[in-house]
This record gives sequence, structure tokens and C-alpha cells, in this order.
Amino acid sequence: MLDQGATLDRVFQALADPSRRIMVEQLSRGPASVSELARPLTMTLAAVVQHVQVLEASGLVRSRKVGRVRTCTIEPSALGTAEQWIAERRARWERRLDRLGEYLAEHSDEPDEGSSR
Amino acid sequence: MLDQGATLDRVFQALADPSRRIMVEQLSRGPASVSELARPLTMTLAAVVQHVQVLEASGLVRSRKVGRVRTCTIEPSALGTAEQWIAERRARWERRLDRLGEYLAEHSDEPDEGSSR
Repeated sequence: MLDQGATLDRVFQALADPSRRIMVEQLSRGPASVSELARPLTMTLAAVVQHVQVLEASGLVRSRKVGRVRTCTIEPSALGTAEQWIAERRARWERRLDRLGEYLAEHSDEPDEGSSR
Repeated sequence: MLDQGATLDRVFQALADPSRRIMVEQLSRGPASVSELARPLTMTLAAVVQHVQVLEASGLVRSRKVGRVRTCTIEPSALGTAEQWIAERRARWERRLDRLGEYLAEHSDEPDEGSSR
């Protein structure tokens, strides 16, 4: 549970940066080298490497160096953890609204209590 | 699109903090006052107010002050925006894996090309 908390801290922090989201977007279409990730971004290669390190530390991306080329791949389970956390809270809120709606519908059908209308 | 980017920056930044996630968790069960949000947390009321302000700026929470009590409510559309962004990237990656699997399955059925076996 503590571990999941730390993962969520790092995943949400990683996704809070627009350049890192562009990298995740690109990697969702397939693996890419660091220079391919750098291409659409207006920043130094060193800055791109730092962003890749944040993405790796969060678990969203893993990379492997073969020769002089480091290739990055998306790790869908970290995306799944963050997606599930949000989805559960949103679902709980919606179930609450549904119950509230049912309660109001039931009570508006009771003419005995309709004195305020 | 720029607007959505700024929203995602703020929503993911807001969710990157464990105390703010506890607040969102509590608010997903129903509206709460700032002091109710402070109860499970070991921090000053001033710190809680600051976290609430970050949550409001992100669009995840809205609040309304009546008399001396500020009541916070979750805003499910901001959660939905973040959830959808993640879900789309994850789905794109999974479709890619599916296509790759289909390609491999098709090509492993071709004995004409099975020279390496």
C-alpha cells in the first residue's frame, strides 16, 4: 500500500510535465530511441535524457542500451495503476450521485410527505 | 488543446501529492468541510487550506463558503480528463501489441518461410 502510494506519487509527477507527456504519447505508438524522442521537442539532448530518467524512475518507461543507442519502451502497468486509481474515485462519486438520485426519486413519489409542494 | 494541456499539468501535479490524494479519496465519498478534510491528516489547518487551493486550481475540487464553513466537493470532469488521457495511451499501446501478435501468428503459419526452424 505504501509502495503503491510512492508509485502514484512518481507516476502523477512524471505525467505533470507536458514534454514527458509528449514522450509517453510517442512511446504509446511504439519503442523509440532517445534521439527519436528528442526530435519533436525543442530542448537539449541532456534535458531529454533527464526527462527519460524521471519516466524510468516512475516505472512508466523502461530503456535498454544496445551499442550507442538507448531504446525506450512504455510500461503499461504503471499507466494502468494511475488510471485505476482515478477510475475508482470517479466511480465511487458517481455511485453516490446515483444513490442520491434514487433517494430523491423515491421520496418525490410519496404524496404523504409532499407538504412543501 | 493548449487548455487541455494546462489542465492535465495541474491535475497530475495535484494528484502527485499523497495528502491531496487522501482528500480526493475522502471527497469521492461525499462533500466535506476543510476541517473534516484536515481530520485524518497530521498537518496544520493552514497547510490543508493550501492543498485545497491546489486542488481547486486544478479543477479537481470546488468549494463554497457559507458562514464560517467552507465545503469542498469533487469535480468529476477533471478526474475524467486525466483518466481519459491515460486510457487512450494505454489502449493505443495495447492495440499495437495486438497487431504485433496477429502479425507473428500469421507469419508463424507460413511453412514456406520457416527456414530458420
